[in-house]
Amino acid sequence: MPHKLTDLKRPVPSDIEIAQSVTPIPIRQIAEEAGLLPEELELFGNYKAKVHLEVRERLADRPNGKYILITAITPTPLGEGKTTTTVGLSQALGAHLGKKVFTCVRQPSQGPTFGIKGGAAGGGYSQIIPMEDFNLHLTGDIHAITAANNLLAAAIDARIFHETQTASDDVLFDRLCPPDKNGNRKFAPVMLRRLRKLGIDKTDPNALTAEERSRFARLDIDPNSITWRRVVDTNDRFLRGITIGQGPQEKGFERQTGFDITVASEIMAILALTTGLADMRERLGRMVIGTNRQGEPITADDLGVGGALTVLMKDAIMPNLLQTLEGTPAFVHAGPFANIAHGNSSIVADQIALKLVGPDGFVLTEAGFGADIGMEKFFDIKCRYSGLIPNVVVLVATVRALKMHGGGPKVVAGKPLDPAYTEENLELVEKGCANLEVHIRNARRFGIPVVVAINHFKDDTPAEIEVIRQRAIAAGAEDAVVSTHWADGGAGAVELGKAVIAAAEKPSNFRFLYPLEWSIKEKIETIAKEIYGAGSVTYSDEAERKIELYTRNGFDKLPICMAKTHLSLSTDPALKGAPKGFEVRVRDIRASVGAGFLYPLLGEISTMPGLPLRPAFYDVDLNLETGKVVGLF
Amino acid sequence: MPHKLTDLKRPVPSDIEIAQSVTPIPIRQIAEEAGLLPEELELFGNYKAKVHLEVRERLADRPNGKYILITAITPTPLGEGKTTTTVGLSQALGAHLGKKVFTCVRQPSQGPTFGIKGGAAGGGYSQIIPMEDFNLHLTGDIHAITAANNLLAAAIDARIFHETQTASDDVLFDRLCPPDKNGNRKFAPVMLRRLRKLGIDKTDPNALTAEERSRFARLDIDPNSITWRRVVDTNDRFLRGITIGQGPQEKGFERQTGFDITVASEIMAILALTTGLADMRERLGRMVIGTNRQGEPITADDLGVGGALTVLMKDAIMPNLLQTLEGTPAFVHAGPFANIAHGNSSIVADQIALKLVGPDGFVLTEAGFGADIGMEKFFDIKCRYSGLIPNVVVLVATVRALKMHGGGPKVVAGKPLDPAYTEENLELVEKGCANLEVHIRNARRFGIPVVVAINHFKDDTPAEIEVIRQRAIAAGAEDAVVSTHWADGGAGAVELGKAVIAAAEKPSNFRFLYPLEWSIKEKIETIAKEIYGAGSVTYSDEAERKIELYTRNGFDKLPICMAKTHLSLSTDPALKGAPKGFEVRVRDIRASVGAGFLYPLLGEISTMPGLPLRPAFYDVDLNLETGKVVGLF
Repeated sequence: MPHKLTDLKRPVPSDIEIAQSVTPIPIRQIAEEAGLLPEELELFGNYKAKVHLEVRERLADRPNGKYILITAITPTPLGEGKTTTTVGLSQALGAHLGKKVFTCVRQPSQGPTFGIKGGAAGGGYSQIIPMEDFNLHLTGDIHAITAANNLLAAAIDARIFHETQTASDDVLFDRLCPPDKNGNRKFAPVMLRRLRKLGIDKTDPNALTAEERSRFARLDIDPNSITWRRVVDTNDRFLRGITIGQGPQEKGFERQTGFDITVASEIMAILALTTGLADMRERLGRMVIGTNRQGEPITADDLGVGGALTVLMKDAIMPNLLQTLEGTPAFVHAGPFANIAHGNSSIVADQIALKLVGPDGFVLTEAGFGADIGMEKFFDIKCRYSGLIPNVVVLVATVRALKMHGGGPKVVAGKPLDPAYTEENLELVEKGCANLEVHIRNARRFGIPVVVAINHFKDDTPAEIEVIRQRAIAAGAEDAVVSTHWADGGAGAVELGKAVIAAAEKPSNFRFLYPLEWSIKEKIETIAKEIYGAGSVTYSDEAERKIELYTRNGFDKLPICMAKTHLSLSTDPALKGAPKGFEVRVRDIRASVGAGFLYPLLGEISTMPGLPLRPAFYDVDLNLETGKVVGLF
Repeated sequence: MPHKLTDLKRPVPSDIEIAQSVTPIPIRQIAEEAGLLPEELELFGNYKAKVHLEVRERLADRPNGKYILITAITPTPLGEGKTTTTVGLSQALGAHLGKKVFTCVRQPSQGPTFGIKGGAAGGGYSQIIPMEDFNLHLTGDIHAITAANNLLAAAIDARIFHETQTASDDVLFDRLCPPDKNGNRKFAPVMLRRLRKLGIDKTDPNALTAEERSRFARLDIDPNSITWRRVVDTNDRFLRGITIGQGPQEKGFERQTGFDITVASEIMAILALTTGLADMRERLGRMVIGTNRQGEPITADDLGVGGALTVLMKDAIMPNLLQTLEGTPAFVHAGPFANIAHGNSSIVADQIALKLVGPDGFVLTEAGFGADIGMEKFFDIKCRYSGLIPNVVVLVATVRALKMHGGGPKVVAGKPLDPAYTEENLELVEKGCANLEVHIRNARRFGIPVVVAINHFKDDTPAEIEVIRQRAIAAGAEDAVVSTHWADGGAGAVELGKAVIAAAEKPSNFRFLYPLEWSIKEKIETIAKEIYGAGSVTYSDEAERKIELYTRNGFDKLPICMAKTHLSLSTDPALKGAPKGFEVRVRDIRASVGAGFLYPLLGEISTMPGLPLRPAFYDVDLNLETGKVVGLF
């Protein structure tokens, strides 16, 4: 059973000290209490387990629980504590208010764990444990993505290499479909997918015409068209731009490319958006890696590798069960980028959790970045693919961020805060609430009630908080509640929990922002104007070219996933508060056809972080006496 | 309990069909029967578990079991079935002869799984299951190595980048040891290791002189000296030679390097050779990545990352428990290359297994490549670091390979065999036995009794087998026995099992080939002449330079790990049989200081395989009805 934390230490110790001070409950017991059967679990040690997707079928007749999205106002570079609030609220609902509850969060990349300090498992007395596993390998899902992503990358270059060295299409065909001892040829099942795509309705290799053999066998990939990059889950800036193929045996095949961090892989977005194995098989197979010399898209299945990618991802698709410090269950599953992807944890975890908690229970799920990005994508992309209907939006705000939006001095990670942030300043808060109001109205535009969670920092004053409360309610929030879960655990989020319970009783009138049938430009402009407050949208020539290309290829019916800075409602990170009427420039548009969205680039997006001079790894070690990790946050 | 396979199918089905036809025993039960306590296990699903190293302490007073090495004659490119023999012999001892037994084998790279067909979990009715897990992610050990290896790589280039941009040594020092709020500075524990290496006996950053601050803070790595490469566990030939640092922000820092396949990482060799967490921490920290501009070695601990690498590897160090088709326990742990590394599974797995089986039991462990390489390294490197004393060598031979050594036509993977190999040819077998004899004598040189296992193929004739038997015994083997475990499972290896039991009763008189105090050249020449049959050894200028360098740095007391072709006793893969008096040319010598060996390069060694035009992944997919993997071998 969930248990209330006692003996809270003051001052609040480091995250890892708190995490290691609580003895976790065996995950089998957490699972049993959550309503899982032993045969629905795959244990990974005593404190982690993967959960079978079939739970959804077993509980198909049970109504879903309340579905609560946790999002935030436009954040400072330090973040506003969404995950900590998600976990704290979960502890409040489960350990203090007697509700069935599940927390669903993203798995972080290992890169930043060793780069710049800052855990992702929550913080203070609101954490998911074991936090070391959470921040390190967990159950290997991200490693599986690395393996799958890079197998596809190797397949692309190897295919170009071998095709170039094989002048005859017939020889190529022979080597792809070699006769067996008895002279019989057979297509591998994945080859039938390519044949169908080519409109060739034959299953016997000997029945193909010479022209069909050529079309089937020669992919003729244009090396300059390849958008598929390799990945590592390490902050390795020197891999951002590289030249490959410089070994003596690959002479003449050099080309420029680069590595992204693994969580930026389209396969991560697929893991987050897929609804099951068969769906994942389709999505992985239809991922587009570039085009042939005629400009036609080439997919993973054209390369024959969609099945192998699915096999590599077959365990990763199962959500990972962990627990909070107060013994409530948590799913940690998928962690796509929130700019070039949609920044939400997995659909399958939410679906399972909603069945497990049942109609009187609550599932808390978190969306990345601010509500202009993470929430909009949650609704228009994730909920569209999942079919799930959210009940409440919890909008996390801090006095600090609102002061920044009100005109306070710049907030820089690693630098001491200006006194404007540590002393009462009602004027800055008042002015900054304009940002809060935009996000509240945006959430209500989707038909969902909003509760504002004021994540409490030690220097916040009652007068500052009262300003926020009044402005939030005036803007249409159901309630605005201070929460001290970081210092107090679930006990600090009880009032927030009550507000969420009350809001969840309200009718939800959920609607998407746009229908998929709209043109690419209509969709982009609706998001830019209605959610961000833009006055106009302009397009580079490259973006126009892509719109034309994607429309021709039938990709224009996909939802839109804006790659925009999270530090402003606009595309300029320096523009705080609630800017209006600005121009949004679409620099380029890319397609994640497997994941199922187009992503317009509204600025420079880094997909590979770097290490600082003194990375966080300096402090990380193993205590060889106890076997415990030290120095991790 | 181990169980005999019944209902053996004819013709023998594919490996994956056989593997999926047997319902595995829950691994908890396998563990319990092996003598493990529940708290000594970390389950990974129901059929895999990691085993705590502390088992060794609990059973410290129990005498070890018999320690049996499985090796082979010089193989054809198709391999002679060492793993299959290891597994089959294990099944015979455990399920048919009532002995306590443990199989210890290497974990294969995922690269070849999707490249060129050929599983690594044994074959036919002698396999380790679940074979899909065995050949795919298993429990993520190889992924952990990828993560650790690449974190170190990123740390190297990032450090060069930041040092170059920081002209002042004092600024560099300040950023490495920044003062806290109260102006106090503290060294991270890993920094104290670097200070000790520099001979600076101070722990207070403020106590360092300006000269000491400079020496401490500026590593001054020579980019041209860097030998540490990045890794992926994918057959990606286009990464063999690459240029990194071509992103706009890294301009001016381009350098040439490359990726190896993960199992070629020194960290894999460390995983295989370490004896515990504290030992692994030391080895990871002392890995040399290159030198500074003064030619002094720079280590992982100099970069501050030894602790983080240990944390990444803390779970990987625990051996993975699986089972054979007949329900005997198997450890699958570590899989270092057999040329640039020593090609043996882990020491810790063998140590635990030897305690678990106890004095009347048997531990079978396999060494890579032929006995000239894998066995020699098993004795002189692995047994030296483990302190374990082997009892019997099982030398696997096939009629096919011996015919090749007798002058039979070339054997090429993927091409049909010449009739010389499918029809009786006593003359070829007779002549080929010269190769077998060398390996038998080599094993006896180490003081260990030898049993020859003739791995039976369908075209072998009784007369051919009798030739091998007589020659083996004449050369000093205890026995030579036909084994049909591939087709018959453990039942086919019962006679082999009896021969091994008998040989294990003989006194073992184990001795190393050379003492560590010898010079590098003395060690190299002893191996080349006494084991390979070389007449002379010559050295390139580069090799001479390295000998001088390593001797100066004190690395000359490490054992030698020859990087030589496995296809001949000589360094020329075309030279079959038992060549004599040839020259061995040492092209270069490299150092794996963390793993603890020097590896002379005796030829071109590829550390990154490629994909063929039609890779094995074409056939791999998931059956979406059953969730089972299809097409994997």
